[in-house]
Amino acid sequence: MKRFKAIIQYDGTNFVGYQIQPNGRTVQEEIEKALLRMHKGEVVKIVGSGRTDTGVHAKGQVIHFDSPLAIPPIKYRKALQTFTPYDISIVSVEEVASDFHARFGTTGKEYRYFVKRSEFFDPFARHFTLHFPYELDISLMRKAANVLTGEHDFTSFCAAGSSREDKVRTIYSIDVIEEEDTLIFAFQGNGFLYNMVRILVGTLLDVGQGRLTVAQVKANLEARDRTQGAKTAPPQGLYLWEVYYQ
Amino acid sequence: MKRFKAIIQYDGTNFVGYQIQPNGRTVQEEIEKALLRMHKGEVVKIVGSGRTDTGVHAKGQVIHFDSPLAIPPIKYRKALQTFTPYDISIVSVEEVASDFHARFGTTGKEYRYFVKRSEFFDPFARHFTLHFPYELDISLMRKAANVLTGEHDFTSFCAAGSSREDKVRTIYSIDVIEEEDTLIFAFQGNGFLYNMVRILVGTLLDVGQGRLTVAQVKANLEARDRTQGAKTAPPQGLYLWEVYYQ
Repeated sequence: MKRFKAIIQYDGTNFVGYQIQPNGRTVQEEIEKALLRMHKGEVVKIVGSGRTDTGVHAKGQVIHFDSPLAIPPIKYRKALQTFTPYDISIVSVEEVASDFHARFGTTGKEYRYFVKRSEFFDPFARHFTLHFPYELDISLMRKAANVLTGEHDFTSFCAAGSSREDKVRTIYSIDVIEEEDTLIFAFQGNGFLYNMVRILVGTLLDVGQGRLTVAQVKANLEARDRTQGAKTAPPQGLYLWEVYYQ
Repeated sequence: MKRFKAIIQYDGTNFVGYQIQPNGRTVQEEIEKALLRMHKGEVVKIVGSGRTDTGVHAKGQVIHFDSPLAIPPIKYRKALQTFTPYDISIVSVEEVASDFHARFGTTGKEYRYFVKRSEFFDPFARHFTLHFPYELDISLMRKAANVLTGEHDFTSFCAAGSSREDKVRTIYSIDVIEEEDTLIFAFQGNGFLYNMVRILVGTLLDVGQGRLTVAQVKANLEARDRTQGAKTAPPQGLYLWEVYYQ
């Protein structure tokens, strides 16, 4: 039995998220179905670095699984791709040490959020960006991003129903990148709470529009109270961009 | 009663084409439904510059329609967009002379076809490009493009069932543009037969792969026989890019 690490991409539009659900199509289910076919009916479970929600995309999701098949990794990638639907891409498969763990072994993640600022709605970008044709003060957003960077209790910036007790996370960096009419928020950190990136994006957009001051963002962070927070940005602009391991 | 010209974009993925069909969702039907709502139940028919097929996109489709509403064009655009689904975008609406005709008034069109040459399949591009990870000789393709440019009888390059009698068309230019891992074919001409652009793309890709020589393309063109032709490239890479009027 060998352990494999795979990097996968997916267009989240037609999934109810990464993790298997009783109802709805999921990324995990599709990959496990592909592995079931490769293994001629033997069940192979996969472990992902974490979940992504309905409509959220991945450019660099990482999974691991154990397989008895004696296939070179390069052929493994092609074989797995063959059995996988077109909205998932298998970027790489490599053999790893038997103690590699896609979830517990992470040292950090990067998420990116794409905002399309064109005046007119772009039908080709509708599943992949948030359309936001309003004025934004980028320098104020960068100031608020600085306030949010670092080690903090992010209770005010995670979904109210979240059950994790420890809400302290470290954000290494928040970059606000302008590329033509697209604004990209890049978040690097040691971990992110449920809906945290989308709530941070909602907050930064509120700051950019003058609906929230940088001082209010600081006060919200210190209040540790989700009811103080901004609205959650919609899922289609969000990508799990990269997962880091030692 | 005023006549309006509108430029529209659409993502063709979820349409069975531009023109109203007994079964399936069409662009024409969605826009006429939007106009019906704007006109409080009064039927307003639209005329397009031409049809596009299932899965084919438009960046610059042109339509015209007559409306009694006294709305300034800029507000007309916004109002029509409001009633139109998210895979159609109304780029502009302007009042034109009463003899403007979106179909009969055209002097030419540009179509573009996008080919993604990345080794790995890109799930985010699957509805918008043809994935083609094979070697291509671009200079040979440009030579074949030169052979096809000009005034010709394009019988060999239109769908066999096509009923139009006159199959002479003039292609003003065929540009083969390389942008990173994307290859773009841009066709400008006075008109295009049914499936003609997709058959021309199939032909050029065959030339690029060495399956057809430039001399064979010339012979096929002169044969005026569809059965000599290359296969039809799939619809998702094709865009009606621009429609020209005097």
